[in-house]
Amino acid sequence: MTISTEALEILARQEIEVPSWAYGNSGTRFKVFSTPGTPRTVQEKISDAAQVHKHTGLAPTVALHYPWDKVDDFGELRSFAEGLGMKLGTINSNTFQDDAYKFGSLTHSDPAVRRMAIDHHLQCVDVMDATGSRDLKIWLADGSNYPGQADIRTRQDLLHESLVEIYDRLGDDQRMVLEYKFFEPAFYHMDVPDWGTSYVQVAALGDRAMVCLDTGHHAPGTNIEFIVAQLLRLGKLGSFDFNSRFYADDDLIVGAADPFQLFRIMYEVVVGGGMADDTPVAFMLDQCHNVEDKIIGQIRSVLNVQEMSARALLVDRNALHQAQRAGDVMGANGIFMDAFYTDVRADLAQWRESRGLPADPIAAYVASGYREHIEADRVGGNQASWGA
Amino acid sequence: MTISTEALEILARQEIEVPSWAYGNSGTRFKVFSTPGTPRTVQEKISDAAQVHKHTGLAPTVALHYPWDKVDDFGELRSFAEGLGMKLGTINSNTFQDDAYKFGSLTHSDPAVRRMAIDHHLQCVDVMDATGSRDLKIWLADGSNYPGQADIRTRQDLLHESLVEIYDRLGDDQRMVLEYKFFEPAFYHMDVPDWGTSYVQVAALGDRAMVCLDTGHHAPGTNIEFIVAQLLRLGKLGSFDFNSRFYADDDLIVGAADPFQLFRIMYEVVVGGGMADDTPVAFMLDQCHNVEDKIIGQIRSVLNVQEMSARALLVDRNALHQAQRAGDVMGANGIFMDAFYTDVRADLAQWRESRGLPADPIAAYVASGYREHIEADRVGGNQASWGA
Amino acid sequence: MTISTEALEILARQEIEVPSWAYGNSGTRFKVFSTPGTPRTVQEKISDAAQVHKHTGLAPTVALHYPWDKVDDFGELRSFAEGLGMKLGTINSNTFQDDAYKFGSLTHSDPAVRRMAIDHHLQCVDVMDATGSRDLKIWLADGSNYPGQADIRTRQDLLHESLVEIYDRLGDDQRMVLEYKFFEPAFYHMDVPDWGTSYVQVAALGDRAMVCLDTGHHAPGTNIEFIVAQLLRLGKLGSFDFNSRFYADDDLIVGAADPFQLFRIMYEVVVGGGMADDTPVAFMLDQCHNVEDKIIGQIRSVLNVQEMSARALLVDRNALHQAQRAGDVMGANGIFMDAFYTDVRADLAQWRESRGLPADPIAAYVASGYREHIEADRVGGNQASWGA
Amino acid sequence: MTISTEALEILARQEIEVPSWAYGNSGTRFKVFSTPGTPRTVQEKISDAAQVHKHTGLAPTVALHYPWDKVDDFGELRSFAEGLGMKLGTINSNTFQDDAYKFGSLTHSDPAVRRMAIDHHLQCVDVMDATGSRDLKIWLADGSNYPGQADIRTRQDLLHESLVEIYDRLGDDQRMVLEYKFFEPAFYHMDVPDWGTSYVQVAALGDRAMVCLDTGHHAPGTNIEFIVAQLLRLGKLGSFDFNSRFYADDDLIVGAADPFQLFRIMYEVVVGGGMADDTPVAFMLDQCHNVEDKIIGQIRSVLNVQEMSARALLVDRNALHQAQRAGDVMGANGIFMDAFYTDVRADLAQWRESRGLPADPIAAYVASGYREHIEADRVGGNQASWGA
Repeated sequence: MTISTEALEILARQEIEVPSWAYGNSGTRFKVFSTPGTPRTVQEKISDAAQVHKHTGLAPTVALHYPWDKVDDFGELRSFAEGLGMKLGTINSNTFQDDAYKFGSLTHSDPAVRRMAIDHHLQCVDVMDATGSRDLKIWLADGSNYPGQADIRTRQDLLHESLVEIYDRLGDDQRMVLEYKFFEPAFYHMDVPDWGTSYVQVAALGDRAMVCLDTGHHAPGTNIEFIVAQLLRLGKLGSFDFNSRFYADDDLIVGAADPFQLFRIMYEVVVGGGMADDTPVAFMLDQCHNVEDKIIGQIRSVLNVQEMSARALLVDRNALHQAQRAGDVMGANGIFMDAFYTDVRADLAQWRESRGLPADPIAAYVASGYREHIEADRVGGNQASWGA
Repeated sequence: MTISTEALEILARQEIEVPSWAYGNSGTRFKVFSTPGTPRTVQEKISDAAQVHKHTGLAPTVALHYPWDKVDDFGELRSFAEGLGMKLGTINSNTFQDDAYKFGSLTHSDPAVRRMAIDHHLQCVDVMDATGSRDLKIWLADGSNYPGQADIRTRQDLLHESLVEIYDRLGDDQRMVLEYKFFEPAFYHMDVPDWGTSYVQVAALGDRAMVCLDTGHHAPGTNIEFIVAQLLRLGKLGSFDFNSRFYADDDLIVGAADPFQLFRIMYEVVVGGGMADDTPVAFMLDQCHNVEDKIIGQIRSVLNVQEMSARALLVDRNALHQAQRAGDVMGANGIFMDAFYTDVRADLAQWRESRGLPADPIAAYVASGYREHIEADRVGGNQASWGA
Repeated sequence: MTISTEALEILARQEIEVPSWAYGNSGTRFKVFSTPGTPRTVQEKISDAAQVHKHTGLAPTVALHYPWDKVDDFGELRSFAEGLGMKLGTINSNTFQDDAYKFGSLTHSDPAVRRMAIDHHLQCVDVMDATGSRDLKIWLADGSNYPGQADIRTRQDLLHESLVEIYDRLGDDQRMVLEYKFFEPAFYHMDVPDWGTSYVQVAALGDRAMVCLDTGHHAPGTNIEFIVAQLLRLGKLGSFDFNSRFYADDDLIVGAADPFQLFRIMYEVVVGGGMADDTPVAFMLDQCHNVEDKIIGQIRSVLNVQEMSARALLVDRNALHQAQRAGDVMGANGIFMDAFYTDVRADLAQWRESRGLPADPIAAYVASGYREHIEADRVGGNQASWGA
Repeated sequence: MTISTEALEILARQEIEVPSWAYGNSGTRFKVFSTPGTPRTVQEKISDAAQVHKHTGLAPTVALHYPWDKVDDFGELRSFAEGLGMKLGTINSNTFQDDAYKFGSLTHSDPAVRRMAIDHHLQCVDVMDATGSRDLKIWLADGSNYPGQADIRTRQDLLHESLVEIYDRLGDDQRMVLEYKFFEPAFYHMDVPDWGTSYVQVAALGDRAMVCLDTGHHAPGTNIEFIVAQLLRLGKLGSFDFNSRFYADDDLIVGAADPFQLFRIMYEVVVGGGMADDTPVAFMLDQCHNVEDKIIGQIRSVLNVQEMSARALLVDRNALHQAQRAGDVMGANGIFMDAFYTDVRADLAQWRESRGLPADPIAAYVASGYREHIEADRVGGNQASWGA
């Protein structure tokens, strides 16, 4: 089985947005390890991201986190990025690190805190205007740790009210994507715990509000590709936050924990039109490289998405549907698995080279000397992490 | 803390529907144990159910399963039930035990099988007309065991088409409730795996289509009371299938595995208006008494719901909201737990007696000699189980 | 990367025992589907198993279930199997389908029931003497559904006493393997729920008592390859029951739900000496083919184990250890994944042919006409299932 | 049902060790909230802990964390504590916050890092000599995030070697307890992930090495009371780290998430002799008060343990065993639940008063003005948290 010309065309336009914060330090509540060469500024983060794109051709856009990536002049930052061949992408709001948000932000019982949180999001839209970003991504840490602590029901209504105000501020070409998460940092209830809640909240807003699906934000055992299929069917899959997990929101490299799951997800994306030319779906990484090299980790990640997309595009859908309709379980599964088991790496390497990219992006990056350069150069200052 | 007069009024109108199949044998794929006195006919099941109501005053309605409880004349069965002081309740369809449904029913790729499954549901509505039942409950075993086996996306559309036809057959006073389930009997994908899917499917039908929440049908760790609150907010919580679980769909006695969870659920029911006079929520049991006495198991179950409802009604909601608004986590949690820890059993026993019911329903049932009677009487014939 | 000569030698001696019951009907508590051609007798099951071996060369042994596969003369059955080129393997006891075992077998509080259960196992050893089987496999359904129902602590002591008596009956060349299971059919506690319990019980018996690891019998998220490594280190991994799962004990085809997990397991088997010439580890399937063709399902299963073994043997362990010692996370992971992603299927097909086996065992089986033969031949009688 | 005199005697000698770090700030990887009055020094932590004991009479001992609680003179610290009526308890080692431990400590492939980690533990024993502590608690963050990253098998052997050296340093009256954890901070494999691993490691050391069971460190659905029963049976339950969880290692207040589970655990403790006069079991809290008042949270925690112990002691064990032996599932469960549902709070309040303690410890603490005092007093300096 080889990758078809049609599939290569689809792969040629594939873009995976990388998160600025992946290049900074991250960790667990137990320890954040620092590493030589870690960026101190958003510019350095963008430079690192540009390396990923340079060697893969897959990642021309960097998502920003506000206020972690706050600068005085976002227009200037845009120019800086463009100078590196990069675009600025999704703006990620942050209402979980201010003391005021201890008991919630857009859902807080205190109108003053809600006001503050809404205003923060309005500022994010201002940033979007300057950066040319299309999407505002809202992930809320809002929730509670103890039964009785919060009024679950009322908070849904407050959330709706807050979102309406933010949604109304969006420009015609701008969108809001609302992320859901099963748990953490809240340990009893989350205000947006599942796709159903995100869906009903964005459906109440309008066409430009959509769901963001983070692959690590589900209960154990959840069939994620089903949700992908359902949201595409409903026209409400706005974006992916790709990563992988063995246990909880582990934020490992996408495809690392369960490559077959990534394949199944990409297959439903293909089936549901998510890789079409006019797809509404933004593909993004949202990962933490706690112990591994960050830039290599990002390169590995976008390649994993590319490789599994290629495998998903290999599925012989006509034969599959025939087997499905015939009730031929083993036949259908066999066709599906055949695509998954096909080693597309050599073909992709060759194709990459034909497009002026390195056959082996990781080797090319290692050989480039970039790492030695930043380790020598980035001495002193405060390494970026989740706190800044 | 004692139960208020207002709370007692609410408890006085509480009704929990019992399932006919709980009185028959059930088990696991490994073994179904039979027990002396098990009903052979639907009439015997209703007689057993009447015992639960007799001693508790809580369970005047029996849900039927079609075709397990099929009789020639459902009007006659209705009269039989009424003669025992019982009503016939929700009609449960069954599209999982016919060989034709091996690969689906309402979602099957073959139009002939879908036709058969739709017709089965139309027959169920005929039964409802005869029994005076309000609700048609649809639980689908539809799904697949292997990736690639089924076309997940298309099946959602087929499900919608099938449901439309069934919904259109409903009378003005009849409703459809669509149950969701995380897994089993399908082990890769279920066509209605979560509340979100059930919600979007019933929302596309109309006002008389609602969600049925079975407390055992969620992924590990799911915050069920959140879903209860959300569905009540959306006006789409049609009914509960009560039971409890430690692992999967264990179908244990409601409140047995996690009494505190039942308390939290009942609290959200109270908050969301689910115990109001005009509540749209039907409270039902859906359990299996694999190893325990079935009638005692059912009595225990309705009492558990009553006791946890009483505790939920004990919560000092004014004080709670004050503590919540003040960010007093321990205070709010303390108020909540205080209600849970209050032993309402003696008060309820006394109140039960004041209404002409036994203080101890299980003791009264045991003392009644009913069990000895049915063990002696029900000799020969085929004991009812899931197969019939 | 190609499979080394040394690896092919290891693969050449690989044997995967198949379970007689996989050829009979199986299902869930909701429905057992029957299929044309299903065996009615143990002889027919062995004939089907012989097909798997014929086309793969991987499965020369059939495990029996007692009393499902009870015959008057097990010596004769042995000859029958040998006539088909098959051996009789592990004897699986059954103490979960007799009414007496409702509340336990080897752990029952009633000495008479324990006696009965012990005697059953002694009979199993008699069968082993006749069949030449090495292993007695004990899986216990013992447990309870409700807190308080059983005396968890005392039952561990009773289990020990019962096992001692069975162990003492074993011949010098016979072994006992004790399986553990997280839940089902008991839904509150299982008497042997985890590898720790199985280990402490068999360690208290002696060298010929070992643990049986069923890949579907763990809590969600459990790192199974860790347990494999640990048990091999302790010298107590007696056997595998291979299957796969998305949710609970789904009993799907091994490698179907998570091929990468199977790869990781086989890698630890290789590392721990489990594929050495004198390995104490018996590799067995224990699966249910509820909706798929059973013989094809079995062929697919043994091929999956073979393919993942081949991939595991591809891992460049020297390079891996070097990367591990250097703290090169991405490098080590890359070496590991490289082996997993390598498509060994063509190489294996060629090698299979070189050994006189079909390149494509499933195609060969389908082309053989065996299925048409048994469908025409096996008419009437009672199809085998878990009940018989 | 009232608490028996015998039960009150048991309760009178109950002690629950509190962790020094519970009084400092804690949080998630997303945010650590600070609060006025948080201790800056270990002395201030001990002062706070003394408040818990003062109002409950339950918590005379404080566990220390090394090096978080490092002081120049631990003998002096011991005197300080004694001056407040407190003892110093378990010493908790820390090999997860030094950069050297990025890839492991006692299991690290580099002998120099293992040496450093072993030496750290030997220092901990020095501290124990000075503080008079009996127990050294070892919890290891050791593990890996990616398949292939680490040599799972070899690390078990290295762990054994490291533990031997530490064990050999212990005095005759000192013990080692080895904690296990399912996941976090490592997300692929943990070197001590389950009770089985902790058990085989400590069993290989000797009598003074035991298992530490943290109630939040298990896979979803794990029956913890079974493990409690098993470890008590094996004589290897050294200590509890109490807390509660809805999802992962949430570190909520013990009994907060599932009070019934705490009851079941305490019942097995009672049954297994864990509350006997000479119990080897140390009862400790290990919790994080991320959003709630820390001292009140600790008071609530020890009271929860006391209340559930009282309920567990209420179980009519004779009647229960009779029902168990009779196979009376509902009867046995009813006896068990009766104890759980009995509201012991008023009885305990009265008994507390009879012993010179406040009926309502939380109210007494609030009324004491201690909080206002520390908030005014502890201004400036660095609030203690996990980092120091």
